[in-house]
Amino acid sequence: MEPIRVVIAGIRGKMGREAVLAVTNAKGMTLVAGIDRPRTYTEASVASADVSFPIYTDPSLCFVEQKPDVYVDLTDAKGAQSNALAAVEAGVRPVIGATGLDAEFLQMLDQELQQAELGGLFAPNFAIGALLMMRMSALIAPFLPDIEIIEYHHATKKDSPSGTAKKTAEEIARALIESGKEVPPIPIHSVRLPGFVAHQEVIFGGNGEHLTIRHDSMSRVSFMPGILLGIQRVMNVVGLVNGLEHFLF
Amino acid sequence: MEPIRVVIAGIRGKMGREAVLAVTNAKGMTLVAGIDRPRTYTEASVASADVSFPIYTDPSLCFVEQKPDVYVDLTDAKGAQSNALAAVEAGVRPVIGATGLDAEFLQMLDQELQQAELGGLFAPNFAIGALLMMRMSALIAPFLPDIEIIEYHHATKKDSPSGTAKKTAEEIARALIESGKEVPPIPIHSVRLPGFVAHQEVIFGGNGEHLTIRHDSMSRVSFMPGILLGIQRVMNVVGLVNGLEHFLF
Amino acid sequence: MEPIRVVIAGIRGKMGREAVLAVTNAKGMTLVAGIDRPRTYTEASVASADVSFPIYTDPSLCFVEQKPDVYVDLTDAKGAQSNALAAVEAGVRPVIGATGLDAEFLQMLDQELQQAELGGLFAPNFAIGALLMMRMSALIAPFLPDIEIIEYHHATKKDSPSGTAKKTAEEIARALIESGKEVPPIPIHSVRLPGFVAHQEVIFGGNGEHLTIRHDSMSRVSFMPGILLGIQRVMNVVGLVNGLEHFLF
Amino acid sequence: MEPIRVVIAGIRGKMGREAVLAVTNAKGMTLVAGIDRPRTYTEASVASADVSFPIYTDPSLCFVEQKPDVYVDLTDAKGAQSNALAAVEAGVRPVIGATGLDAEFLQMLDQELQQAELGGLFAPNFAIGALLMMRMSALIAPFLPDIEIIEYHHATKKDSPSGTAKKTAEEIARALIESGKEVPPIPIHSVRLPGFVAHQEVIFGGNGEHLTIRHDSMSRVSFMPGILLGIQRVMNVVGLVNGLEHFLF
Repeated sequence: MEPIRVVIAGIRGKMGREAVLAVTNAKGMTLVAGIDRPRTYTEASVASADVSFPIYTDPSLCFVEQKPDVYVDLTDAKGAQSNALAAVEAGVRPVIGATGLDAEFLQMLDQELQQAELGGLFAPNFAIGALLMMRMSALIAPFLPDIEIIEYHHATKKDSPSGTAKKTAEEIARALIESGKEVPPIPIHSVRLPGFVAHQEVIFGGNGEHLTIRHDSMSRVSFMPGILLGIQRVMNVVGLVNGLEHFLF
Repeated sequence: MEPIRVVIAGIRGKMGREAVLAVTNAKGMTLVAGIDRPRTYTEASVASADVSFPIYTDPSLCFVEQKPDVYVDLTDAKGAQSNALAAVEAGVRPVIGATGLDAEFLQMLDQELQQAELGGLFAPNFAIGALLMMRMSALIAPFLPDIEIIEYHHATKKDSPSGTAKKTAEEIARALIESGKEVPPIPIHSVRLPGFVAHQEVIFGGNGEHLTIRHDSMSRVSFMPGILLGIQRVMNVVGLVNGLEHFLF
Repeated sequence: MEPIRVVIAGIRGKMGREAVLAVTNAKGMTLVAGIDRPRTYTEASVASADVSFPIYTDPSLCFVEQKPDVYVDLTDAKGAQSNALAAVEAGVRPVIGATGLDAEFLQMLDQELQQAELGGLFAPNFAIGALLMMRMSALIAPFLPDIEIIEYHHATKKDSPSGTAKKTAEEIARALIESGKEVPPIPIHSVRLPGFVAHQEVIFGGNGEHLTIRHDSMSRVSFMPGILLGIQRVMNVVGLVNGLEHFLF
Repeated sequence: MEPIRVVIAGIRGKMGREAVLAVTNAKGMTLVAGIDRPRTYTEASVASADVSFPIYTDPSLCFVEQKPDVYVDLTDAKGAQSNALAAVEAGVRPVIGATGLDAEFLQMLDQELQQAELGGLFAPNFAIGALLMMRMSALIAPFLPDIEIIEYHHATKKDSPSGTAKKTAEEIARALIESGKEVPPIPIHSVRLPGFVAHQEVIFGGNGEHLTIRHDSMSRVSFMPGILLGIQRVMNVVGLVNGLEHFLF
């Protein structure tokens, strides 16, 4: 079988460089090109992966010349929206990790993908452990509905509470509603200290007992298995899948 | 509706006294009698529940005179087997927390219950949090199959590793097999220190991340919701249910 | 050597009953009487300790008739102040766990004790582990001054943050000042859930690392070694010792 | 004041590259050269620090030509011993992180340093948090002498238990002996899973309570403040300091 041809946008960023290593080492896929803004990072740091490939600044040109199967967006740029549409037009499946895409756009992208009979993925969180934490929290909540969340991030993190903590609370609320239970307040505590990366605890109080589910993300490496899974799975679906969890559970 | 008539065996033990409080305060059930060995504990400590009821030393006599619906066995005695059979013969549904009952006996008890068209429950662990921990561990394992278990108990605990840790490892192994995965060794670490009650962590290693599910049992109170659930649910089943989890999930 | 004669005030309360067991089982001391309000608790629960002793409602009468060496106050009553003064007048050393005593009173009590050449102890926290947590936090802070505190208590706890958390933050601030460092804000997060007793974490962020010191109090038993230590040590000091830590470090 | 002139051995390794960044960004010191084996790593990855300096393969030549004040050894090579002696001969103070140096060699190195009136440091662990964990454990142990250690490392770590865990147990034992207490067995549990870096918990059991001190090292960055402290402090001592803790406490 032909390997999946992959393009990575944001390839000179920290996440992009990690993805170069992951895609290059994965079976069944090949990295054909990168996309990035004009030289903001040193060439050297990407080259250290010991692979060579062209880096484009024009996504459309990249898609036309390289004919990739999948395009992975690891930018946090506004450009993610137009890039994704350009990809679909060129017959390329988008795997989008960029944040800040609204529901309206995602709905439009889904329609474009349906028409083009292509798959796509929007995944605000690629860490399989984080997705499992959210999933398990939703399963536990109806049995132990007194819940608090503590999330720990580096002191330089700008938003508080974290997106993952808010999403966890939403999923717990939905699970409680679906099982016909009241939704109590779910306090979120945000610890911001140097020496942390990305960590979260969901604590369930019970009668004389408590249950805790904790996720510790130590480095960007934790997102790579999710990115690879996304690349593989968008090949076999039609339309936009919203959340990597739909490829897991 | 008539309240469920409950008898508790091992009523002067620590667990039994806690169960007196739980059953007495629960809606829809009434404590009609206790069973225990001849005066080994002070009468006073049971009486402190501010309820009065006879305490029998002969289970059969208790069943005949009190006509309970459900009999809860919280002894660790060898007598649990003969008591359970005496209960079924008297038309009383057994809820058994006693340990040390072998598979052969449980099969026989199931047949007796089927014939008598009565329900029964064998539950080596009544803590809902512990059952959730085991269940979630089995769900997580196929995604993150590198696993270790740490269990923490009081220094005076005799067995090591704990029954819950061994059962957790078994359920993880079963889940891995069912999903077509290899079962790696699952090391169990047993911490035995004063100042602990009953605690367990299941740790799942991943790529640059790890996930932990932890259960902390602070006191015997943690078993009471499970006992009450068992009492309610054996009223509506036929045959022996092996494990409280079948009433939960 | 004569055993230390001990009286316990608040003897029918939960803490008092635990102290009956502790003092009764300790070497070198004997429980000679209790003090409590007129029959609010059942006699039975104290009697269960298998010891017998009179329970007074009038502290002064108790001190005169029983001639104790030490009086332990485990009430949360307003009466603690007048009781302590009555004790000193009768030549009895107070060991006070009651809260809500202000600095002015403590200063006055110290003077009375100095004049009477008697020792006394005011200890808002008897748990040795909690005192160690505070002490170690103060020692660590100058090296890792980015600090947050999380405290976990039962959902029914009224105050938030806990007294221990506030005291910990104060001791950290003092240690930072003494070592010539700035005192940054020290956020305190209060988790209030069923299934917790009294737990606290002090988290120190560093460069690519963090250090955590955590104290878990599982039951009132954790206060007993501190109470016994207090009883022994007030025999050999003059004046009021403010905080059990002064007998430890 | 003149900046301290620093040479780093093992500069192309992972730790070495991190140290390039740390020394380059630190005030009061300047990186004058590196030492490494003939081209085993790509030049690019060191160059990415955006500083330029010569990399020697001959330590003696480096010391003669560059006249550094301090030489930091981050190799795990056998060469560390001869390099350290060459450094002293050239009037350069060694800061040694390399492991596998025996007591006999360290004693000899100390004598050489004394004669040359130079300072030096041997530091098997540069993480300040880890040193604090060991120190605090030794302080807590006499109060709560029932202790177990759990250490968590990446599945690829070769030794078990870790050197830090063994050193912690030794320091605890020494503290217990010094305070006239018996030394009980101190079990060490070694968890080896992907998704961990270097973590350790020391758990102290008490009466109805337990105390835990935990250190989490997330990346090599955690060693940098200790290396910088070592570089600064060897300028002002004479002889070999064995353990960074002597510069801290």
